[in-house]
Amino acid sequence: MTRHLTIQVPGQGLHLITAQVAEAVHQSGVQEGLCTVFLQHTSASLLIQENADPSARRDLERWLNRLVPERDPLYTHTAEGPDDMPSHIKAALTATSLSIPVVDGALALGRWQGLYLWEHRRYPSERHLLIHLLADPTPE
Amino acid sequence: MTRHLTIQVPGQGLHLITAQVAEAVHQSGVQEGLCTVFLQHTSASLLIQENADPSARRDLERWLNRLVPERDPLYTHTAEGPDDMPSHIKAALTATSLSIPVVDGALALGRWQGLYLWEHRRYPSERHLLIHLLADPTPE
Amino acid sequence: MTRHLTIQVPGQGLHLITAQVAEAVHQSGVQEGLCTVFLQHTSASLLIQENADPSARRDLERWLNRLVPERDPLYTHTAEGPDDMPSHIKAALTATSLSIPVVDGALALGRWQGLYLWEHRRYPSERHLLIHLLADPTPE
Repeated sequence: MTRHLTIQVPGQGLHLITAQVAEAVHQSGVQEGLCTVFLQHTSASLLIQENADPSARRDLERWLNRLVPERDPLYTHTAEGPDDMPSHIKAALTATSLSIPVVDGALALGRWQGLYLWEHRRYPSERHLLIHLLADPTPE
Repeated sequence: MTRHLTIQVPGQGLHLITAQVAEAVHQSGVQEGLCTVFLQHTSASLLIQENADPSARRDLERWLNRLVPERDPLYTHTAEGPDDMPSHIKAALTATSLSIPVVDGALALGRWQGLYLWEHRRYPSERHLLIHLLADPTPE
Repeated sequence: MTRHLTIQVPGQGLHLITAQVAEAVHQSGVQEGLCTVFLQHTSASLLIQENADPSARRDLERWLNRLVPERDPLYTHTAEGPDDMPSHIKAALTATSLSIPVVDGALALGRWQGLYLWEHRRYPSERHLLIHLLADPTPE
């Protein structure tokens, strides 16, 4: 009941993964239960955020980039590039796992909620997620 | 095993919802298991925080309001009011889902932990939460 | 299926608890399922972060200490010491519960992921965690 999901990301930013996770729920056949998404990385995050106006997502990214800038003289962990340490900090401030109820065979997201993989590194990479699906026991 | 909970909030602030979630656990009859609370919004959060001294909660709110102020010139997403973009940022920095073990028929919160709905918008609204309850299988 | 884990922490910092949680998974006998870790405190956090280079963890701590310093004149909740209010704020910005799939009898952490108890108070203390283990139903 744990499925693997691999996402190719072009670089820093919010990448919508609602459809891929919804497809895993559909394939599982779970009608009522719980879907837990887990990201196997420490320089990217999971985020549930407004899926309507793209300006909200752009502002969110710009705000976090200002809060956690590259080339901060505080950083000593710089061997993996100027975007590496900010990525770890951003990941620590956001989510690595998220659990969403499944109702009537679908993720019970709110009307304006999208599920995003938030890539914090600048470069293209392959990110691995696990999707755990639990079916509620059928009442007898 | 997923219950809906609607909370009327008067505006920005931490609203204690421990009792409502505890009541859902009680009504479910689950004795040992897991309770997952999920918030269907992107401008409010779930928070487990000190439930004793109100000054801790006030400082927390004031601190976050200072970190993420209204009318920051960075924001371009301003059509829904000056409190909207800060609300999305605050929600991204805090939790949308929380999972709490159920032990002996009750939420296994620590002695000082309260469960809060953290409203980030200024105005009264109705917020929707889902409470998923899982009962551990009975040993045979 | 909920186990108690007590961790003695010497003071502020990231304390690796992967081995203790992995041992609880092993003892449970769960082969496929979900492991939820819940921290019963409001001045410490759970964190999944890079377990390779210690400089990344040090920078993370120094960065958060700079963002949320002690003796900020904003704080009114000061009766429990200068490290108390910053601890609550840091806890609010990070995780109190984390859910990790169990695959082939082991926590399905990514290659570079370690699980940490992030203590925010300065002094030695005893911290209590709950580990909930769910075994997926066996296919018939």
